[in-house]
Amino acid sequence: MKIGIVGYGNVGRGIESAVRQNADMTLAAVFTRRDPKKVEIKTPGVPVYSVDEIEKRADDIDVLILCGGSATDLPKQTPMYAKFCNVIDSFDTHPKIPDHFEKVDYAAKQTGHVALISCGWDPGIFSVARILGSCALPEGSDYTFWGPGVSQGHSDAIRRIPGVKDAKEYTIPVDKAIKAVRAGETPELTAREKHVRECYVVIEEGANEAAIEHEIKTMPDYFADYDTIVKFVSEEEFKKNHSKMPHGGFVFRTGKTGYDKEHLNVMEYNLKLDSNPEFTASVILAYARALDRLAKEGQTGCKTVFDIAPAYLSPLSGEELRKKML
Amino acid sequence: MKIGIVGYGNVGRGIESAVRQNADMTLAAVFTRRDPKKVEIKTPGVPVYSVDEIEKRADDIDVLILCGGSATDLPKQTPMYAKFCNVIDSFDTHPKIPDHFEKVDYAAKQTGHVALISCGWDPGIFSVARILGSCALPEGSDYTFWGPGVSQGHSDAIRRIPGVKDAKEYTIPVDKAIKAVRAGETPELTAREKHVRECYVVIEEGANEAAIEHEIKTMPDYFADYDTIVKFVSEEEFKKNHSKMPHGGFVFRTGKTGYDKEHLNVMEYNLKLDSNPEFTASVILAYARALDRLAKEGQTGCKTVFDIAPAYLSPLSGEELRKKML
Repeated sequence: MKIGIVGYGNVGRGIESAVRQNADMTLAAVFTRRDPKKVEIKTPGVPVYSVDEIEKRADDIDVLILCGGSATDLPKQTPMYAKFCNVIDSFDTHPKIPDHFEKVDYAAKQTGHVALISCGWDPGIFSVARILGSCALPEGSDYTFWGPGVSQGHSDAIRRIPGVKDAKEYTIPVDKAIKAVRAGETPELTAREKHVRECYVVIEEGANEAAIEHEIKTMPDYFADYDTIVKFVSEEEFKKNHSKMPHGGFVFRTGKTGYDKEHLNVMEYNLKLDSNPEFTASVILAYARALDRLAKEGQTGCKTVFDIAPAYLSPLSGEELRKKML
Repeated sequence: MKIGIVGYGNVGRGIESAVRQNADMTLAAVFTRRDPKKVEIKTPGVPVYSVDEIEKRADDIDVLILCGGSATDLPKQTPMYAKFCNVIDSFDTHPKIPDHFEKVDYAAKQTGHVALISCGWDPGIFSVARILGSCALPEGSDYTFWGPGVSQGHSDAIRRIPGVKDAKEYTIPVDKAIKAVRAGETPELTAREKHVRECYVVIEEGANEAAIEHEIKTMPDYFADYDTIVKFVSEEEFKKNHSKMPHGGFVFRTGKTGYDKEHLNVMEYNLKLDSNPEFTASVILAYARALDRLAKEGQTGCKTVFDIAPAYLSPLSGEELRKKML
């Protein structure tokens, strides 16, 4: 399987690393919007091209992995490149998924390609955990907690405040809430009761700490509805202790079974990731394998993780899977 | 969807209860090897027939759920009834799955039916967690722990000892081992290091406690390789405290990502079930929905949970799933 990467950021580099862990895949090319001559990748011998060459190079690519952002890149890129290649993205703007799906589906069907959107761990593996939970326990409650881990969106929001030089936000699930869910207490939880937001901030010389702290804590949508902790640190400490991108989270489904609904059952899926972008990339590659198979079966149009049977993700045959994993 | 049950034991009763929680399903009939007149079921108006009538009544059943045991019932029943109906079983004798699959596949294909074997939570949902883990982290380690919960097989083994009136075995995962796995230490664990076996035993009057305890603790395969705790209790206490069928377990996948494999990631799936047979039944019904859809698409032959795309399990449409669960 020949893999192409569009966008050599954190997830793109994660794909490059993950290809090395999948014997049936090779990295065929990296496409960038920057000057290709200025993008140095780690894998020897793999060409870097301008994104303008994707159409021309499409025959060399089995699955093209779009590693751009959901805000502005993917809404354009995924329908555009689905005209030339089988494509996967990790589009995660939940309310816009139906619209994105329609556009990608149209482009892919028109040209006989197959696409998969919103892949990774949430949306992605967590979505699979949610659907399994809701189907296995049709009468029940769902809970998703995120973290402990770095939220890119919240970190960006802090960095946009004047006087802030750098910042990182850690989303931390509230232990008490998780314990209540795990015990089957089906609590009704506010945003504040589910997550704490811990912010590490480096300020410009002379900037006003108290004013910045106030601005963070009262920022609507991002912080105002949460217990937010703001810690000012030196640039040195920031670089030393806050340069990683860990993340994780929990998906719960709790529900009753029995003729009189007398028995409680709790399903829990959780992830603890040292590297959010690398794990995301690794999941995407498993789904790239599935997509390549669907393409070879002649399927077209847009899919999501809900449409992919687990066997398609694995390099093992049906016989091997039944023997080793069932 | 019209559901038929073969075998009105714990799982059969679980199916009967779970049908009430799925608005798109009705219980069409229960089939028994006992005298149908002597089998009283809970659902008013649903007929109980002899298993001999399955062929004759097959047109009234969309999916027939086989609730017998893996040792002797299912190896015969599943290939036999796959000739008349779409069938699901929970066959869990791992080494015999390939052979069972072949026989069921042949019978179902010959007659244009579709079958799904080895459904429930292990094999079943845990198998899905294992394949997702192995594909998302291709270089890593797998761990499955069972319990805390009642092992029917181990309880039966104790009950076969002369002088034992009743017995229940609880399989308990070793907390230290789970913590080491969760911390990414990838320990190599013996059977003894993974699970403890706790047995509650009621003896006949005059039976020798010490001899029975010795016989349990030295029983090969079942107890000899484990730290086994034996507690003798009165019949009254046994009935009061040990009449339930809780179970559960943990599936872990831990693995490294990164260009130099520098980052650890931990995936954990766990279940805590008040009722093992009811949860098993509830999972089976979700897969029955998938099977009915595959049948309507014209698919035939034997499937496993690896062959079922998650969307097939849900009563929701693709649009609704993308909107609510992705």
